[in-house]
Amino acid sequence: MENINIKRLARELNLSVSTISKALRDSYEISTETKKRVFDLAQKLNYVPNPYASSLRQKKSRTIGVVIPEVVDGFFSLVINGIESVAQSKGYHVLIYLTHESFQKEKAIIQDFQSGRVDGVLISVASETTSIDHIEALHKNGIPVVFFDRVFDNAAMARITTDDLESCYKATRYLIEQGCKQIAFLSISQNLLMSNQRLAGYKLALTDSGFTTQQDLIVSCENEPAVNYAIIKTLLQRPVRPDGIVASIEKLAITAYLVCRELQLCIPSDVKVISFSNLETASLLHPPLTTVTQPAFEIGEVAAKVLFKALENKYFNPAKESVTLPAIFFPRESSGNHVAIKQ
Amino acid sequence: MENINIKRLARELNLSVSTISKALRDSYEISTETKKRVFDLAQKLNYVPNPYASSLRQKKSRTIGVVIPEVVDGFFSLVINGIESVAQSKGYHVLIYLTHESFQKEKAIIQDFQSGRVDGVLISVASETTSIDHIEALHKNGIPVVFFDRVFDNAAMARITTDDLESCYKATRYLIEQGCKQIAFLSISQNLLMSNQRLAGYKLALTDSGFTTQQDLIVSCENEPAVNYAIIKTLLQRPVRPDGIVASIEKLAITAYLVCRELQLCIPSDVKVISFSNLETASLLHPPLTTVTQPAFEIGEVAAKVLFKALENKYFNPAKESVTLPAIFFPRESSGNHVAIKQ
Repeated sequence: MENINIKRLARELNLSVSTISKALRDSYEISTETKKRVFDLAQKLNYVPNPYASSLRQKKSRTIGVVIPEVVDGFFSLVINGIESVAQSKGYHVLIYLTHESFQKEKAIIQDFQSGRVDGVLISVASETTSIDHIEALHKNGIPVVFFDRVFDNAAMARITTDDLESCYKATRYLIEQGCKQIAFLSISQNLLMSNQRLAGYKLALTDSGFTTQQDLIVSCENEPAVNYAIIKTLLQRPVRPDGIVASIEKLAITAYLVCRELQLCIPSDVKVISFSNLETASLLHPPLTTVTQPAFEIGEVAAKVLFKALENKYFNPAKESVTLPAIFFPRESSGNHVAIKQ
Repeated sequence: MENINIKRLARELNLSVSTISKALRDSYEISTETKKRVFDLAQKLNYVPNPYASSLRQKKSRTIGVVIPEVVDGFFSLVINGIESVAQSKGYHVLIYLTHESFQKEKAIIQDFQSGRVDGVLISVASETTSIDHIEALHKNGIPVVFFDRVFDNAAMARITTDDLESCYKATRYLIEQGCKQIAFLSISQNLLMSNQRLAGYKLALTDSGFTTQQDLIVSCENEPAVNYAIIKTLLQRPVRPDGIVASIEKLAITAYLVCRELQLCIPSDVKVISFSNLETASLLHPPLTTVTQPAFEIGEVAAKVLFKALENKYFNPAKESVTLPAIFFPRESSGNHVAIKQ
């Protein structure tokens, strides 16, 4: 049986695909006469609408998909709450999908969205992701996509980020001011703009302070806790041990704390630590952790608002929707020179 | 236009609904001849399958829904990872829905599932939830539901829980052995079996040790961090201050730590604290937190396996699928009498 689709109806009636689509949706923009012609032919040819595509165009799913690497992370948990606060006010459901940093899994999820399961997508790409063709394909297919935190540099798509370069510059300068001379940078991915911006801020701070970047102090971590533990342990057992650590994500800082405990290194006197983190317990750790804290809830809110702008306005230009929010620096005892709050 | 559905086809052909359904799915159980009769009539009557219902019966969504109160919680994050590990091996997607402890939101989510968006559901009910009629309706509609952690006592449905009573009994006894005489219990809900079991364990431990339960030491917390802070602060400012706290969920223990810091109370010498928790940083807190730790990843795994059993076997009896896993007790410095690990 030949596949009767909207294109075929359009060809037969010498109308545009958009007109057919609107007529089938009983849009007020189409005349009653035209609608009748479309309905009659649709019936004659036994046209069966693709339910998912149809649901999509009518935005019937009233659902947005949120694709993130993981939930065992203060940042993403708070972002979700920000997204939900907006979605709820619009009467939308939020579906959360986890990639666990896998590019293959991310592709499978995005592929699944093509069926029209969601009206729009908010994504923070996996650390393994090296290309976003799959995401661009979705976007071109009429499902708007907004990136947050982990964006791609060359994509002309809406994005909500933090001032990663500036805030990492500030964190690194802070450690230099505390007397650190061997500052290590714990990174998670060479692919992500976010990682590269943080790394750039770290390097620039070193250069501005008259230090040379030592490539062996820039450590790439993996997605496996045990592997990261071993990597950081090796780092802290070097003959010339780092006296400062900038962790680009919070789980690497937690691992650094655990390694320091095993090696009986004292934070901050032996090693000073600063981390990008939204850890709820940062101020309760021993010692309290100095953090560069992203406005996670607000990032979720803004990203969701931009997505709804796209869903509600067809003249939306994604390339123009680029928002950068500032991170907040919370100096605590782990980076030294900070008056301890008595507990 | 009359609504042509499977029932109408069945009536016209004098066949059962199940036979029509199987024929339309091209099942090997149906003869070619019967299939032809069904297809011919379906075409003649212009039968359009209900995509959602059809997708449901064919389990085509290949998706399971996970409904949880929140993700800013170590327990639920790890449960999700356990669920995903099983779902991935089966080629299923996992969708995560958050209720934020709201009964209304939970009902809306479950209602949405009736459309066939997911093949099966794993749920840990909201603390506000007082009835599970909405969940039972879903289950009766052919979408299997498995409860985990927060289950309902009177539901004849599959459930995966922890030995809440026994493990809370043990935690309370531990505090009594450390000399606590005024042990407070921080609860989150009177509706949940999990909460009640933990409370029962607490009470039993007191009775077995010759103490009387003091109703004013059993504190019901809310879903609002600021409110909980005030509640716990009031508790710790009483003329006869509690010298021990059993927190039934980890966020209440974190709040207790923050309150102790403000009130300059020392943990464990002024107040000893034990919490149900999967907090990754428990051992890094100041002081390290004694936890009753649920096997969260395993709970997720077992719950998902039970759900797939339901999806794959129509003779599945949910009432018989009740699994209780033991929690693990990790004594650390917050509960006193513990040799500190030097950091």
